[in-house]
Amino acid sequence: MGRPPAYHRETLLRQIVACLWDGGYAGTTISEVVKNTRVNAASLYGLFGSKKGMMLAALEHYAAEHKKGVESALQSSSTGPGRVEALLRYTLKTGTARPENRGCFLVNSVLECASPTCEISQAVRGYMRDLRERIERALEEAPPGPRPQFTPAEAAAYVQAQMWALALHARLDSVAHGEVLIRQTLDMLFGREAASDVRSAVA
Amino acid sequence: MGRPPAYHRETLLRQIVACLWDGGYAGTTISEVVKNTRVNAASLYGLFGSKKGMMLAALEHYAAEHKKGVESALQSSSTGPGRVEALLRYTLKTGTARPENRGCFLVNSVLECASPTCEISQAVRGYMRDLRERIERALEEAPPGPRPQFTPAEAAAYVQAQMWALALHARLDSVAHGEVLIRQTLDMLFGREAASDVRSAVA
Repeated sequence: MGRPPAYHRETLLRQIVACLWDGGYAGTTISEVVKNTRVNAASLYGLFGSKKGMMLAALEHYAAEHKKGVESALQSSSTGPGRVEALLRYTLKTGTARPENRGCFLVNSVLECASPTCEISQAVRGYMRDLRERIERALEEAPPGPRPQFTPAEAAAYVQAQMWALALHARLDSVAHGEVLIRQTLDMLFGREAASDVRSAVA
Repeated sequence: MGRPPAYHRETLLRQIVACLWDGGYAGTTISEVVKNTRVNAASLYGLFGSKKGMMLAALEHYAAEHKKGVESALQSSSTGPGRVEALLRYTLKTGTARPENRGCFLVNSVLECASPTCEISQAVRGYMRDLRERIERALEEAPPGPRPQFTPAEAAAYVQAQMWALALHARLDSVAHGEVLIRQTLDMLFGREAASDVRSAVA
């Protein structure tokens, strides 16, 4: 615990996220966290209060990092289809990072959580809402927009649902199915021609 | 252990599925299973060999039950859009069953699993493939089929991805978002008119 506190907290949270993302909330013991962070249990409880408090801090840290990745993917293109494609590719790529194919920490956590009323599920629900709203704004700012039958909010929710399915494809290591889903999503949202234009521009 | 063995195994597996589905694989201890099944640990190990063996047997039992539910949903309509709608409604309904909003045991399990090479993940991958093939056949048998840009296999994979997203909506208790996703999926797969026809027929 000799490092500067701010640096320490950032590094520590990154290590804790790695631990809990690998092993899951229920599957990770405090002694594994102690082993991986080299911070003793008393200090961990001092910082986070409880294992659940540690999990909530880890989810907050991951959500902030994830938001940066999402933002960077969205900003990498100035068109609606380009933004959605970049976002979905980012999801599949981060989810299939070796050696673990860890998927998405938020998705894994909510599916592990015993009840939708638990604090972990509530926290994830808030992060998911933030992301959905961010996707909605990114689509509004970047023509061409989705087919007219979608409201912007519906299009954003649709994209997020496909991100969840991609996180599962990542976890199952079925990258080829994930690629097909990305193409289908672009065709569905924007129509075949708009989606093809983006793919040719990217290729 | 005085009941007839066949009856006993069926009931026991149903109780074990309930336990593991509620608490997750890592989050459920053998003593909780003992408490809920009133079968002692030695007998459980005798039957299943290990906690992982018990989980694999529970997944097999759940997958067989799930398959019956899927089959019944698919057979409830003679049209492609009607079959997909029934299947997606079944997914949302079973996933949001009270009090737990447990989602789908297969989806929860694969997301909890530490690696795509683990036996649990491999088993789930097999059940997912079986279900996808079943959906594909159900679509082939029931006109009108999906839009022409979908091969039957791609349409089935697309439907399955939406089932996964619905399982997550169920887990987050966001039923309204799930309903929107069902409508979007039907519009996307079959075109707006075919999908509307089914909804009017169902309503």
